[in-house]
Amino acid sequence: MKFISNLIPLGDALAKIDENQKLMDTEKIHLKDSQGRVLAHSISSYHNSPPFDKSAMDGYAVIAEDTFGASNNVIKELKIIDRIGAGDFSDKTLSNGEAIVIATGAPIPNGANAVLMKEFTYEDGDNLEIHSQVTPGENVSPKAEDIAKGDELLGENVLIRPQEMGLIASAGHSEVEVYKKPRVKLLITGNELVEPSPEIDKAKIINSNQFSIAALIRSAGAIVDIEHGADDFEAVKEAIDKASKEYDVVITTGGTAISKGDVVIEAVEELGEVLFHGVAMRPGKPVGAGIVNGTQIFMLSGQPVAAMGQFDIVARRYLFKMQGLDYSHKVIKRISQAKIPSSLGRTDYIRAVADDTGVHHVLNRGSGIIRSMVEANCYIIIDENHEGIEKGDEVDLIFFNDMAWPSL
Amino acid sequence: MKFISNLIPLGDALAKIDENQKLMDTEKIHLKDSQGRVLAHSISSYHNSPPFDKSAMDGYAVIAEDTFGASNNVIKELKIIDRIGAGDFSDKTLSNGEAIVIATGAPIPNGANAVLMKEFTYEDGDNLEIHSQVTPGENVSPKAEDIAKGDELLGENVLIRPQEMGLIASAGHSEVEVYKKPRVKLLITGNELVEPSPEIDKAKIINSNQFSIAALIRSAGAIVDIEHGADDFEAVKEAIDKASKEYDVVITTGGTAISKGDVVIEAVEELGEVLFHGVAMRPGKPVGAGIVNGTQIFMLSGQPVAAMGQFDIVARRYLFKMQGLDYSHKVIKRISQAKIPSSLGRTDYIRAVADDTGVHHVLNRGSGIIRSMVEANCYIIIDENHEGIEKGDEVDLIFFNDMAWPSL
Repeated sequence: MKFISNLIPLGDALAKIDENQKLMDTEKIHLKDSQGRVLAHSISSYHNSPPFDKSAMDGYAVIAEDTFGASNNVIKELKIIDRIGAGDFSDKTLSNGEAIVIATGAPIPNGANAVLMKEFTYEDGDNLEIHSQVTPGENVSPKAEDIAKGDELLGENVLIRPQEMGLIASAGHSEVEVYKKPRVKLLITGNELVEPSPEIDKAKIINSNQFSIAALIRSAGAIVDIEHGADDFEAVKEAIDKASKEYDVVITTGGTAISKGDVVIEAVEELGEVLFHGVAMRPGKPVGAGIVNGTQIFMLSGQPVAAMGQFDIVARRYLFKMQGLDYSHKVIKRISQAKIPSSLGRTDYIRAVADDTGVHHVLNRGSGIIRSMVEANCYIIIDENHEGIEKGDEVDLIFFNDMAWPSL
Repeated sequence: MKFISNLIPLGDALAKIDENQKLMDTEKIHLKDSQGRVLAHSISSYHNSPPFDKSAMDGYAVIAEDTFGASNNVIKELKIIDRIGAGDFSDKTLSNGEAIVIATGAPIPNGANAVLMKEFTYEDGDNLEIHSQVTPGENVSPKAEDIAKGDELLGENVLIRPQEMGLIASAGHSEVEVYKKPRVKLLITGNELVEPSPEIDKAKIINSNQFSIAALIRSAGAIVDIEHGADDFEAVKEAIDKASKEYDVVITTGGTAISKGDVVIEAVEELGEVLFHGVAMRPGKPVGAGIVNGTQIFMLSGQPVAAMGQFDIVARRYLFKMQGLDYSHKVIKRISQAKIPSSLGRTDYIRAVADDTGVHHVLNRGSGIIRSMVEANCYIIIDENHEGIEKGDEVDLIFFNDMAWPSL
């Protein structure tokens, strides 16, 4: 059995992972399926937008100069020579004294230079009374105001939000090239683990990581398949070997059995390379990372809370960066409402509840206490250079919600 | 044709929607599919967690008093009488001078009251040398420390995050009762709208709302089906009638054609009730809401940016509340880096870019300028009681990302 003899600083662990960072291949998908994906190529426009000078109002295309001086007291008259609905256009050219009925979004006809809103008119057959004046360009959205043909609109590695989808469509694209989502195999080891049920046998523990860690993996934009295996060395080794050939990332939980040693770490060592095992952080010290068949392996604890923290702090950003999205924890400042001890040389991430101004840590924080994660909405981070914090200190924290793959 | 004669304040519009707020029916789903859903019933535990006093370490179950005084200089000896792997337990009862090998997570055997870490021992056959002492209870996670059988762990209307999934599993539940996701019909009206393509006919406009508004609906936790129809009154009326019978919510975009009036509003008026049409806000003033066949209808503009804002400000929270999740915009304070004019009596939500301290508005903000939404990451809100803001003023803003259905 191997002990963790050399804890490495968290920064060194993250650097070792960064050195081995991989980027996913790309795929072409329909724009309608692109929400939350990341562009692998820049997007240029096939079109001007608007494609023509268009009306911004329902009203009358006019020559602005014809309206000058019109008011509720000085009513002018124009002759209606055509009508343009949405999606239509007029071949006619406007001369002085003429107007064309126009819908919002329709092209401004030749000769016209403004649109008079319907509210300021009275229409009687082809005769139009106008009660207001407009300036040249008024209520007209000029051609290419939004986008000029050939403009690069979005660079590569841009997250596709609802508005990017709209912009890409307007640019004339119905497909986009994006990074594939990583497929992650979650290997849950542990002979003692059983499915949730009202009755469980003595010495058995409900397998909660298959739910919580799988959900975290999805919250990093990845697709997860779950396998629950025994913690027998040969079985674990075979499962890791197979998964590393079939998946983009392998994440394990548990695998410590006293009679057999830390089977997961040993299996990875035999199959490939252990990048590190043991990080100076709390909770989650026994976390490991390795590479097997060129595939990144993250080895998390079996303890539910330790495993969640290890995923968030060590594995999450690897999955984001695989998909072309640069990720760093969004650190917010709050005033600590209590003294919290820590140790120099160790990074603590402490389950806590923050509001608009303050933060207090969740007191019951054993690494198995999943309830503490339910009470919390953030981690307080105490880095390795600080020996705890005092009540009233400004502290760094990360909201759980800010760690998720952005959904808007 | 109807004009918007009476703009109502935004607060009044939201109140009218609230009065008609509906809650979705519930459904029972497997826990593995529950991420991001909302509990319709509280969850109590079938189990104690841990279900027994369990070892928090790999090591040796001992009687703590037997170890008192042991150190690197004072080595004591115990006799190993059994070995417990993960998922196993021992029927033996420990007497003084005895130890049982124990894995992390295994039940503490009868008679033992502490676990000595493996690091502080030397094992030779059944003989165990110990180099350290432990106190009673050390490295033991007591039965029910996390959860006591029968405890209510989660109330109704709680969002199921990864940690709630873990907790619900630990409580013994493999299924949960949650609110159904609303099914939304997005009806896009407009004869001028065509699919994105490098070549489009004159007077045609690319239908971008089918992508951006559909994505916003999904970002509010709902399921969306899209239909693009003409803006002919009878067709629109029939489509709204049909959709209102088949879907939980109907959202329309566009539908203003000068020759025919505001067909969507008129169709809803004939089919049911218009709650309001025209809100004192910018952009998005012509937004409407109504009820047809008991189903909530939101009527958005055809202009892409106006429609996005109308959805965010008027429709989003209805969809959240349908799913049992109370929603209010998370308002953040930042210093404005520019003067921004507004009008008393009107709520402005202004596309802007905020960082950790300041915010500046996106200058090009016509309601059709979708690019302005791409440049922005938030809305500055100027409520109806403020006539603009000065450079250096603290302003309210809402980050786009904070409006999305929480994903973690």
